[in-house]
Amino acid sequence: MRLSHLAQALGRPMVGEDVEITGVATLADASPSDLSFLANPKYAPQLATTRAGAVVVRAEFAPHNRPAILSPEPYLDFAQAVRFFARPQGWLSGISPLAQVDPSAQVDPSATLYPFVVVGPRSIIGPQCVLFPGVYIGEDCQLGTGCCLYPHVVLMAGTVLGNRVTIHAGAVLGSDGFGFAPSATGIVKFPQIGRVVVEDDVEIGANCTIDRAALEETRIGQGTKIDNLVQIGHNVQVGRQCMIVAQVGIAGSTTLGNGVILAGQVGVAGHIHLGDGCRIGAKSGVGQDVPPGQDMSGIPVMPHATFLRVSQTIPKLPEWRRRLARLEKDVAALRQALQLDSKEDRTT
Amino acid sequence: MRLSHLAQALGRPMVGEDVEITGVATLADASPSDLSFLANPKYAPQLATTRAGAVVVRAEFAPHNRPAILSPEPYLDFAQAVRFFARPQGWLSGISPLAQVDPSAQVDPSATLYPFVVVGPRSIIGPQCVLFPGVYIGEDCQLGTGCCLYPHVVLMAGTVLGNRVTIHAGAVLGSDGFGFAPSATGIVKFPQIGRVVVEDDVEIGANCTIDRAALEETRIGQGTKIDNLVQIGHNVQVGRQCMIVAQVGIAGSTTLGNGVILAGQVGVAGHIHLGDGCRIGAKSGVGQDVPPGQDMSGIPVMPHATFLRVSQTIPKLPEWRRRLARLEKDVAALRQALQLDSKEDRTT
Amino acid sequence: MRLSHLAQALGRPMVGEDVEITGVATLADASPSDLSFLANPKYAPQLATTRAGAVVVRAEFAPHNRPAILSPEPYLDFAQAVRFFARPQGWLSGISPLAQVDPSAQVDPSATLYPFVVVGPRSIIGPQCVLFPGVYIGEDCQLGTGCCLYPHVVLMAGTVLGNRVTIHAGAVLGSDGFGFAPSATGIVKFPQIGRVVVEDDVEIGANCTIDRAALEETRIGQGTKIDNLVQIGHNVQVGRQCMIVAQVGIAGSTTLGNGVILAGQVGVAGHIHLGDGCRIGAKSGVGQDVPPGQDMSGIPVMPHATFLRVSQTIPKLPEWRRRLARLEKDVAALRQALQLDSKEDRTT
Repeated sequence: MRLSHLAQALGRPMVGEDVEITGVATLADASPSDLSFLANPKYAPQLATTRAGAVVVRAEFAPHNRPAILSPEPYLDFAQAVRFFARPQGWLSGISPLAQVDPSAQVDPSATLYPFVVVGPRSIIGPQCVLFPGVYIGEDCQLGTGCCLYPHVVLMAGTVLGNRVTIHAGAVLGSDGFGFAPSATGIVKFPQIGRVVVEDDVEIGANCTIDRAALEETRIGQGTKIDNLVQIGHNVQVGRQCMIVAQVGIAGSTTLGNGVILAGQVGVAGHIHLGDGCRIGAKSGVGQDVPPGQDMSGIPVMPHATFLRVSQTIPKLPEWRRRLARLEKDVAALRQALQLDSKEDRTT
Repeated sequence: MRLSHLAQALGRPMVGEDVEITGVATLADASPSDLSFLANPKYAPQLATTRAGAVVVRAEFAPHNRPAILSPEPYLDFAQAVRFFARPQGWLSGISPLAQVDPSAQVDPSATLYPFVVVGPRSIIGPQCVLFPGVYIGEDCQLGTGCCLYPHVVLMAGTVLGNRVTIHAGAVLGSDGFGFAPSATGIVKFPQIGRVVVEDDVEIGANCTIDRAALEETRIGQGTKIDNLVQIGHNVQVGRQCMIVAQVGIAGSTTLGNGVILAGQVGVAGHIHLGDGCRIGAKSGVGQDVPPGQDMSGIPVMPHATFLRVSQTIPKLPEWRRRLARLEKDVAALRQALQLDSKEDRTT
Repeated sequence: MRLSHLAQALGRPMVGEDVEITGVATLADASPSDLSFLANPKYAPQLATTRAGAVVVRAEFAPHNRPAILSPEPYLDFAQAVRFFARPQGWLSGISPLAQVDPSAQVDPSATLYPFVVVGPRSIIGPQCVLFPGVYIGEDCQLGTGCCLYPHVVLMAGTVLGNRVTIHAGAVLGSDGFGFAPSATGIVKFPQIGRVVVEDDVEIGANCTIDRAALEETRIGQGTKIDNLVQIGHNVQVGRQCMIVAQVGIAGSTTLGNGVILAGQVGVAGHIHLGDGCRIGAKSGVGQDVPPGQDMSGIPVMPHATFLRVSQTIPKLPEWRRRLARLEKDVAALRQALQLDSKEDRTT
């Protein structure tokens, strides 16, 4: 593909020779027929040494000796360019005779079902869906248009996916929520008869678990992206355009607004609300409502700026212990020197 | 189903008209033919506005305008009522011709094996067991009566399940423990030749991992409930009626008493003991034995009441730094004013 | 097997009668035909009561009444002895007619493919590889000699395994990295077109997730051992002979040197470097580079020795609050007694 063609597709100006581009790579690894990019100025020195045939850069970084596409957002434009060289995974089309589809299910003829897929009674698989080997669709599920379910994804009964939902290998949607209550005769299970609903353009990572609601529905809002090994409890409502990083856990009945960002390994307690656009730092534990737009960190969370300052003081606590003890000794000596009566003013 | 029939089944009195009930729902979402419930007084105002046809409530909350079942334990009784409307998942019975069963395995004729199930040599599948698609049973496994293994559950060789064990999709039992030791010639693997034993009435969440013992057995005690994405290391012994919430990790050779509760994302070190009935707060790290009945939290854990007080002080540490510095300055000024010799009494 | 034969195989001297050994067990559980061992002196009293037929011990612990193999490294030698009694799992050989192999794939005739395995176009499966039921190998993958992939392991397109790689059930390699960037029109996905490369002798735990690189490769170095439920982000480079314990998460583009040890539930931020031989304590959060050989713990990490001292002070913070307040009161009283002007020297 000619560089000029790419520049045109991105709607950005180019400078230099109109070379042929056959791939994409980082500055460090690019070959002379690759397109590369510079987004983080920290890597600017690599512009001089890269073998890349062309680069996407901000105008101020345009190299003299190399063709470039000039962009105010090099990362986003390069991501767009990569699309021209990315092929979707998979190699079959149509419905494999080794897929097991219940006679009452409706599978759109444009869908692809690999071998060892199971589709349960009354489920509906929309146009252009691709179900990789080992995908299990229980009873009464609905998949919209263009969903991609990688190997071994499990949708338990009643799960609903919108359009263009991508689910990576091994994720389980619709497993029972952890609805147990101690009683006089042992632990009692509250039957979990709700479902999971996933809106359009959601992406869910490998080996995630999203539990069905106890009675109603667990919901993942439009455009939200979920990384690997994330746990989402029953009745949770996740808003639109949220980003939930790997190994996060969200306990039951909690609600997230839109645009919420949870960094890796965050834990969120049950029955609370995280407001629109709030951001929670990695490994934090959220036990209470978070107002919209707040950045919070820590276990339990506090404002992120406070957390940064706190983190600087924590390693000094052993030294503080000595300072406190010395102060007390000094103050006792001072009090003695002044012969202050220790009883009357010690009633703190 | 008539409301009176439900009341009778629960052994509780009812008041109001004997309406027909066709489903169950929360107060907020109920329709006029649904049964709902009030357990948490916080939601009492919804009793006035709900469209529910009837409710399960404590006598003091009995509504005037609506039939009700009166119960001292509305949550537990409602959970019981939900059972009448919950159907187990799955749609087949018998042994699919697409299941692969080793000739030396014994599968009870009342068991259900979906397509793409594999049962290895000498394994025994008890009456009324249901093995969903993709379940893998290795060699020499034993399943009691009425076990339910959802899609892609893996039991490696030698795993033993009691009766009425439920395992959610993607869980792996009997994988090798992490038995590695550094040596002069690199990391050496201790072969893992033990097994996993799961007692009656245990429930295990989606994508959990429970490792086989190095030599003997990893054991999950009767009635214990385990949430999703939990990791249990080799040789661990979990007692009876424990509750282990999502993303908990328990390192090798640790033992839990009965009725232990581990909240979400807790980590427990290896080779320690957690006493009967102790409870560990979310995200805590347990590095030492915990006595029976203790509530502990924190990293590392301390008594839960202490943890709550500590959590209130932590965000104040930056302010404390200033207060400490000011005290030191003041005390130095006082000492100077009194001309105390700084040397002799500074030998802290 | 005669004890003398085992002693010879280990290259260690034996004392006592040359008994027949039929199995291996812990001191507590051994029967009279079992070999057992004592590595941790804490268990030395069990030497008197064990029923074991023979033991592997250090010379100073050699029992009078029982045959023994004397070893300076009883744990490592016992691990070696266990190998004689361990059988690999699995019961088939050859390529099952129920495995689906693309005609363009190359499967070595000495490999074993269980039913319901899928091998995609152009993939190469080396000699003596064993692929358990439900294993999915996408397009253009390469497996060296003697790899063992347990049930439902997923290798997405382009994944490369060296020789003798073991992957436990449910692990997913080559899923898309979490490459999302907010933009004016919503969250944009950076297509993930790199791959995962796993070097020789690596072992990967059950239900782990290792993401493909955005552009180049995610790499796991020779001999590294990874426990269950570990998440490794895109572009991560893990060195040789590392040990990564369960539920660790490593964010994108981070690099680990050789011999790094990450304890359970550690989180490592993206774009940082952990030097050779550093060790990170359980549940820690690593946000910055760690120099070689350092032991670090805490959230965020500090030197491990500091962390231990800090951990002792944390539960005392509520008491410190009272001590600080009392000091301030005392100092104010002292200042008043001395009539120090409070304004001039309060400019901290």
